[in-house]
Amino acid sequence: MTGAVVRRSQKAGLPPGSLVYVGDEAAGKTTIEVIEYTPERIDETSVQDAGDLAAYHGRDAVVWINITGLHEVGVIEKTGEIFGLHPLILEDILNTEQRPKMEDYDETIYVVMKMIGSLEDGRVADEQISLVIGDRYVISFQERPGDVFDPVRGRIRLPKWRARRLGADYLAYALIDALVDGYFHVIERFGERIEAVDDQIIADPDPETLRSIRELRRELIFLRKSVWPMREVIAGLERTDSTLVTQQTRLYLRDVYDHTVQVIDTLETYRDMAAGMLDIYLSSASNRMNEVMKVLTIIATIFIPLSFIAGVFGMNFRNMPELEWGYGYPTSLALMAGVALVLLIYFRRKRWI
Amino acid sequence: MTGAVVRRSQKAGLPPGSLVYVGDEAAGKTTIEVIEYTPERIDETSVQDAGDLAAYHGRDAVVWINITGLHEVGVIEKTGEIFGLHPLILEDILNTEQRPKMEDYDETIYVVMKMIGSLEDGRVADEQISLVIGDRYVISFQERPGDVFDPVRGRIRLPKWRARRLGADYLAYALIDALVDGYFHVIERFGERIEAVDDQIIADPDPETLRSIRELRRELIFLRKSVWPMREVIAGLERTDSTLVTQQTRLYLRDVYDHTVQVIDTLETYRDMAAGMLDIYLSSASNRMNEVMKVLTIIATIFIPLSFIAGVFGMNFRNMPELEWGYGYPTSLALMAGVALVLLIYFRRKRWI
Amino acid sequence: MTGAVVRRSQKAGLPPGSLVYVGDEAAGKTTIEVIEYTPERIDETSVQDAGDLAAYHGRDAVVWINITGLHEVGVIEKTGEIFGLHPLILEDILNTEQRPKMEDYDETIYVVMKMIGSLEDGRVADEQISLVIGDRYVISFQERPGDVFDPVRGRIRLPKWRARRLGADYLAYALIDALVDGYFHVIERFGERIEAVDDQIIADPDPETLRSIRELRRELIFLRKSVWPMREVIAGLERTDSTLVTQQTRLYLRDVYDHTVQVIDTLETYRDMAAGMLDIYLSSASNRMNEVMKVLTIIATIFIPLSFIAGVFGMNFRNMPELEWGYGYPTSLALMAGVALVLLIYFRRKRWI
Amino acid sequence: MTGAVVRRSQKAGLPPGSLVYVGDEAAGKTTIEVIEYTPERIDETSVQDAGDLAAYHGRDAVVWINITGLHEVGVIEKTGEIFGLHPLILEDILNTEQRPKMEDYDETIYVVMKMIGSLEDGRVADEQISLVIGDRYVISFQERPGDVFDPVRGRIRLPKWRARRLGADYLAYALIDALVDGYFHVIERFGERIEAVDDQIIADPDPETLRSIRELRRELIFLRKSVWPMREVIAGLERTDSTLVTQQTRLYLRDVYDHTVQVIDTLETYRDMAAGMLDIYLSSASNRMNEVMKVLTIIATIFIPLSFIAGVFGMNFRNMPELEWGYGYPTSLALMAGVALVLLIYFRRKRWI
Amino acid sequence: MTGAVVRRSQKAGLPPGSLVYVGDEAAGKTTIEVIEYTPERIDETSVQDAGDLAAYHGRDAVVWINITGLHEVGVIEKTGEIFGLHPLILEDILNTEQRPKMEDYDETIYVVMKMIGSLEDGRVADEQISLVIGDRYVISFQERPGDVFDPVRGRIRLPKWRARRLGADYLAYALIDALVDGYFHVIERFGERIEAVDDQIIADPDPETLRSIRELRRELIFLRKSVWPMREVIAGLERTDSTLVTQQTRLYLRDVYDHTVQVIDTLETYRDMAAGMLDIYLSSASNRMNEVMKVLTIIATIFIPLSFIAGVFGMNFRNMPELEWGYGYPTSLALMAGVALVLLIYFRRKRWI
Ligand SMILES: [Mg+2]
Ligand SMILES: [Mg+2]
Ligand SMILES: [Mg+2]
Ligand SMILES: [Mg+2]
Ligand SMILES: [Mg+2]
Ligand SMILES: [Mg+2]
Ligand SMILES: [Mg+2]
Ligand SMILES: [Mg+2]
Ligand SMILES: [Mg+2]
Ligand SMILES: [Mg+2]
Ligand SMILES: [Mg+2]
Ligand SMILES: [Mg+2]
Ligand SMILES: [Mg+2]
Ligand SMILES: [Mg+2]
Ligand SMILES: [Mg+2]
Ligand SMILES: [Mg+2]
Ligand SMILES: [Mg+2]
Ligand SMILES: [Mg+2]
Ligand SMILES: [Mg+2]
Ligand SMILES: [Mg+2]
Ligand SMILES: [Mg+2]
Ligand SMILES: [Mg+2]
Ligand SMILES: [Mg+2]
Ligand SMILES: [Mg+2]
Ligand SMILES: [Mg+2]
Ligand SMILES: [Mg+2]
Ligand SMILES: [Mg+2]
Ligand SMILES: [Mg+2]
Ligand SMILES: [Mg+2]
Ligand SMILES: [Mg+2]
Ligand SMILES: [Mg+2]
Repeated sequence: MTGAVVRRSQKAGLPPGSLVYVGDEAAGKTTIEVIEYTPERIDETSVQDAGDLAAYHGRDAVVWINITGLHEVGVIEKTGEIFGLHPLILEDILNTEQRPKMEDYDETIYVVMKMIGSLEDGRVADEQISLVIGDRYVISFQERPGDVFDPVRGRIRLPKWRARRLGADYLAYALIDALVDGYFHVIERFGERIEAVDDQIIADPDPETLRSIRELRRELIFLRKSVWPMREVIAGLERTDSTLVTQQTRLYLRDVYDHTVQVIDTLETYRDMAAGMLDIYLSSASNRMNEVMKVLTIIATIFIPLSFIAGVFGMNFRNMPELEWGYGYPTSLALMAGVALVLLIYFRRKRWI
Repeated sequence: MTGAVVRRSQKAGLPPGSLVYVGDEAAGKTTIEVIEYTPERIDETSVQDAGDLAAYHGRDAVVWINITGLHEVGVIEKTGEIFGLHPLILEDILNTEQRPKMEDYDETIYVVMKMIGSLEDGRVADEQISLVIGDRYVISFQERPGDVFDPVRGRIRLPKWRARRLGADYLAYALIDALVDGYFHVIERFGERIEAVDDQIIADPDPETLRSIRELRRELIFLRKSVWPMREVIAGLERTDSTLVTQQTRLYLRDVYDHTVQVIDTLETYRDMAAGMLDIYLSSASNRMNEVMKVLTIIATIFIPLSFIAGVFGMNFRNMPELEWGYGYPTSLALMAGVALVLLIYFRRKRWI
Repeated sequence: MTGAVVRRSQKAGLPPGSLVYVGDEAAGKTTIEVIEYTPERIDETSVQDAGDLAAYHGRDAVVWINITGLHEVGVIEKTGEIFGLHPLILEDILNTEQRPKMEDYDETIYVVMKMIGSLEDGRVADEQISLVIGDRYVISFQERPGDVFDPVRGRIRLPKWRARRLGADYLAYALIDALVDGYFHVIERFGERIEAVDDQIIADPDPETLRSIRELRRELIFLRKSVWPMREVIAGLERTDSTLVTQQTRLYLRDVYDHTVQVIDTLETYRDMAAGMLDIYLSSASNRMNEVMKVLTIIATIFIPLSFIAGVFGMNFRNMPELEWGYGYPTSLALMAGVALVLLIYFRRKRWI
Repeated sequence: MTGAVVRRSQKAGLPPGSLVYVGDEAAGKTTIEVIEYTPERIDETSVQDAGDLAAYHGRDAVVWINITGLHEVGVIEKTGEIFGLHPLILEDILNTEQRPKMEDYDETIYVVMKMIGSLEDGRVADEQISLVIGDRYVISFQERPGDVFDPVRGRIRLPKWRARRLGADYLAYALIDALVDGYFHVIERFGERIEAVDDQIIADPDPETLRSIRELRRELIFLRKSVWPMREVIAGLERTDSTLVTQQTRLYLRDVYDHTVQVIDTLETYRDMAAGMLDIYLSSASNRMNEVMKVLTIIATIFIPLSFIAGVFGMNFRNMPELEWGYGYPTSLALMAGVALVLLIYFRRKRWI
Repeated sequence: MTGAVVRRSQKAGLPPGSLVYVGDEAAGKTTIEVIEYTPERIDETSVQDAGDLAAYHGRDAVVWINITGLHEVGVIEKTGEIFGLHPLILEDILNTEQRPKMEDYDETIYVVMKMIGSLEDGRVADEQISLVIGDRYVISFQERPGDVFDPVRGRIRLPKWRARRLGADYLAYALIDALVDGYFHVIERFGERIEAVDDQIIADPDPETLRSIRELRRELIFLRKSVWPMREVIAGLERTDSTLVTQQTRLYLRDVYDHTVQVIDTLETYRDMAAGMLDIYLSSASNRMNEVMKVLTIIATIFIPLSFIAGVFGMNFRNMPELEWGYGYPTSLALMAGVALVLLIYFRRKRWI
């Protein structure tokens, strides 16, 4: 089963543990990278066939297996078989509409997270990352090539890296930390967009601004949905009974928990700002309408009575003595000027002009 | 008592455990299907008389009794008598306005849920499903023919189905899982409708759009009311003290709990989107009004002064020397053009045109 | 002290346990009905003097004393003396602005609730009902004649009524159940009114509709205030340490708890609906204004320029050659028609017509 | 340090326990009243010098010291010294912007509350009341003369008052109860004002109404801030470990807790009512605008085309044959009437008239 | 690394404990002040080189080291080395976008807070303050010169200061107390601005007012983000298991906790006020628009029909007998006056004038 867009509802009725890929069409082949390290050495390999992963189970080193591309269900299934993963884990790995969560199975801990990135136009996209944390290994699953883990790879390669002598749990922490660090980039760009729109609302609230507000609100809903559950995920790891997580790593998990809270805090700040935007937009638009109406009212209110006066003196009655007067015309103009002046003073009093 | 629409308030004053059908008029006869299976064999029968169910109580196999149609109260009463169900369970089965809940009676567990489906026009309808989970049996009660359980029936019929050797609790889980899977279909369709309306609000916010927003909001209220309590229901099953639910099944219940949370999450996303829709609609409508007002203001503001000038030169005073000038007429036209130009420049400055 | 409207603030400064009636003026006399029953017999009496109640204390039967009319403070005081009720209970019975609550005194349990009814015009009214539950007796206190307990009276009179052999706690449950059943009638009527207004908002949002929305919101506030605390009251009874409530009755209390949750659920649904109503009303009213403005704009925008043209040709300059042309008049009409046509096409383009 | 308005920020940087009066300017002298009572006797004195209070410490009677006026810091300091009060208590007594709270020091319990009163115009004002509850004494501190404690004073003077033989904790309860009773008066007056504004919004929503809504909202914020924390305060007293509060008094504290909940409940009702007021005002104002616009539209839409027709027949073309017809004039009038009629029918159809 | 603005996202991918300054460009040099005191003596020094701090570790006196300026990362690193601070503490000190928090490391307690100040124009700015509380020392870290700790310095210098004999925990308390005291000044100024805008909204709601409302809302979001977490921070210190905080100091921490709650309470009051401001602004603006529209409608509605009448009598039909009448002209004027009068009465009836 390769590549088509599969929706969650198409899984309806399948038994639990059914391995069906739910996600966007993904071109390209599934790739498997393996990094194995001990304090003394490091090996990096690219594995072609999932069956070859059996060689990496139960090693006397920390093994990180990174699988990119979920549409080749067979690969996931084989991996699960080798490492003895519960069918419900495999099912969740393949369903990329999962909510971030952490589940404690006896032999392994299963973690689902959302990696978030900014597209060129500043809009936000996500990718589901699953981590399976075992005794001496971490397996990460990604939807598409490209991730935020390069700094971790770089550190592993350093022979002097302290964490070389720490276990798989520290490696998992490092991956989660890198992923959460990635959020800061996204929310900073988002913050800039929100500021820009916020200024525009007051300065020049056109229909395009309304579209932007709508867009921001929707992305905010999306971001919150991805980030909020991360707090629970990391707190779960920090407090788990599992012996897979050492005391030392828990201290570092507290640190990344803190980062997540900071991201959430900033998102809530944006939410509070966005919440008022529509009301300000409406008020701002109402101010502009007010201004338009005032111009119309002033012009119309001045000239309609004047036109009426002109109309009266344009009537064709035979017997209109003022039409015959030598100063009838200038007097009528003066009358009109007088009316206009009175109205102008009235508007001035009302502070419309 | 067959078929009429009965409202909840008509039960007022009846003693507890009174068997009164509260629901829509339901044509057709009540039907009873029985599926009995062991690892070795499977029997499917259609039972005509509720009294015949006595044969299926206390069997050495898992028995699934599916009763469709609640308006024949006698059938429900007889079934309750045979399986020793508490009168309060029977009363709740018949009251189809029940809130989803899970209740632990000593010998049985009683579960009420809402099955949700999309009508042809995309609108949402529900049907109350009750499950009674006993030692070796599950009894399901439906309001109308048609359900989402066919995939479960299909799996039971497979001789190699693993769960053949599991108990009634796993069967109940499978039914609940199928029902929750059905939610995904409904919320995906609902999501499409919400997207469509959301686009329309910006592009072309007519009164019909307002009607759609109202409709969406009401259905969302309805959906949330059906789905939210499911979380508690499944968590209740997962954590119950009852020995009717085995440890193995609880792991699967955690999985379906997860699905429910995912559905709720999506519903909350829609709710957040819908919450802003009316404000955006109002802003969008205000934008359109603004545009209308601007056109009126520009036209009126330009032509009202011009008409006034024409009116002045249309007055019938005898002594209006400019009327006699050879270039009076073109001069007056030039004057009018000048006034119009000044106003156009003014509007340009204000960026109205 | 008989009959006047007394407000809560008039009690300020009185010592605790002061017996002052706080409520609406209540005409008529206080009445006392007593029903006494054992499995074998039933006696119904009307007691004239509160002092005679002493005969009903410490009987070997279940006694239900129903006192209607709280303005005769002496009756309440005497009753309290006979049954040894705490002064704070008596004070609360007389204060009809009490919030529903359940209080555990050692010898008795005190329960305050609100009975709700629909007036002829569909509006909602309430009446405070107090229950004192003792070892073998229940005393109910009402503000006015008329209640929802007739079905309970009817059941007590049936010789075959199972509950004849149950204690006072079951009788109290039956009264609470009848009272909660009464809520369903009220909220169904309320639901119909809310539906009617909801349709009107879209179809024909006139000022009268606004008044209805306001009315519904106020009644909803009122209803929620009466019903929400009932959940706590019944849960309190279900979980109390008191030996006055038997295990069997607790199962029935769970059932009526369930009913209360259902009522609350429906009220919250109405609240969600009502919450959006004003926004929809405003949008709907804005749509109608928009329509009005469009008509004005179209008419004015077409005819104002045409009038200007007519005004120009109505000027009295001597030297206006076009006035002399043979085809001047039809040409001017054609010019006007042309201008109108251009404007109509413009409006068509904007989809205003 | 006497009398000036001191703001909280001026205390910045002072060490904890610094005795600085934060409050409004308070004219007049600080007064000290002492009431001492046993079951047998009662003594009332007015103490001139705080130093004389030493005589009332450690007496074999219940002593109530009531100090009015906080600006004479020395008095408070001396009192604290005599009764061994913690400097943090004294500091809080002097800071009249304290939030209501209850603090358990080992030898004493410290309680801060807000006494609320209605000014002549119905607006709300508050005064901070501190209570220090010791083994055989209660000291109350007020900002200004006048309080709601007169009924308590009256009861103490009654020789037959049951509570004469109860301890200082019951006296403290009686003071708190009197203070909470005072709330009912305020919220009833507030309720009347809210009702009046609510009616005005629909009947005649002028700018003055908007001002009233604003005022009500602000006072509601103020009231809630004073009253909400009282719930916690009284619950704290009811559940405290301190031996200063006897079992018997706790029962009475539950009663006054109940009153507080009732006040809060009513405030929340007002809040819900006030929450919708602005939306209703806006809708109501929009309805009025709509009406204005309709009148304008109807008049303008009818007469603008008619004026155009008149303008056409007022043009000065030489060759306008209809002007010469005998029935030209009445025909033109008929034409105008026809146009007006068509427009009137159109408006009727739209139900604008 | 000196001075540039560094954003949080630039830390992405760095290992935990990486020392990178995240903050605004900060000119000037990092300064280190040391105050050491015992009950008998006090020493104040300015340390040039962080390495010299080693002399102050493990002293038999209380040592307060105050470091101002975080951009010189080496200073922070050296300090951490000398006092054995965990790398995660150092990292957080340098990241000035930290959320206020309190963390218990075994040997030290780490506290991050926000110092808030008002700029000249009343707007609000913050500065991150970190405290490291050790056995006999407190180290404070600030971003920029200037703080609210001068009163604490003053008190330390007093030989008779009671706290001279208390430990580092009391010193830390005194610093936190001074910082929280600083909030009162800011929120009082903020309160004045909110009052001013609140009045302006009703009196003269121009676009500038809208800008002010927006500003206030944003600053409120900012203030709440800084202050809310302080409650948790101080509660954490009050309840910590750590032996670094003595029982006596905890009593004082309860006092400053109280101050924080008071600040939060006031902020929430402002939030409630600000929440309604936009709605009131919109209503107020709508009132003004209404007034404008009424003037337009009255003038236009009166003069448009009059102009029509004048237009009719300005038509050039040959056969218009009324034009020839001697009283035609005054009759026509009377007709116009009559029409105007009828309309004026109509407007009066509608209470528009
Ligand atoms: Mg499934
Ligand atoms: Mg799953
Ligand atoms: Mg995805
Ligand atoms: Mg990837
Ligand atoms: Mg903003
Ligand atoms: Mg709003
Ligand atoms: Mg019933
Ligand atoms: Mg019932
Ligand atoms: Mg139904
Ligand atoms: Mg069905
Ligand atoms: Mg979408
Ligand atoms: Mg809204
Ligand atoms: Mg009382
Ligand atoms: Mg009442
Ligand atoms: Mg009654
Ligand atoms: Mg039931
Ligand atoms: Mg609303
Ligand atoms: Mg202080
Ligand atoms: Mg005050
Ligand atoms: Mg006073
Ligand atoms: Mg009322
Ligand atoms: Mg109201
Ligand atoms: Mg009471
Ligand atoms: Mg609003
Ligand atoms: Mg970090
Ligand atoms: Mg990091
Ligand atoms: Mg950190
Ligand atoms: Mg900063
Ligand atoms: Mg500084
Ligand atoms: Mg104020
Ligand atoms: Mg204090």
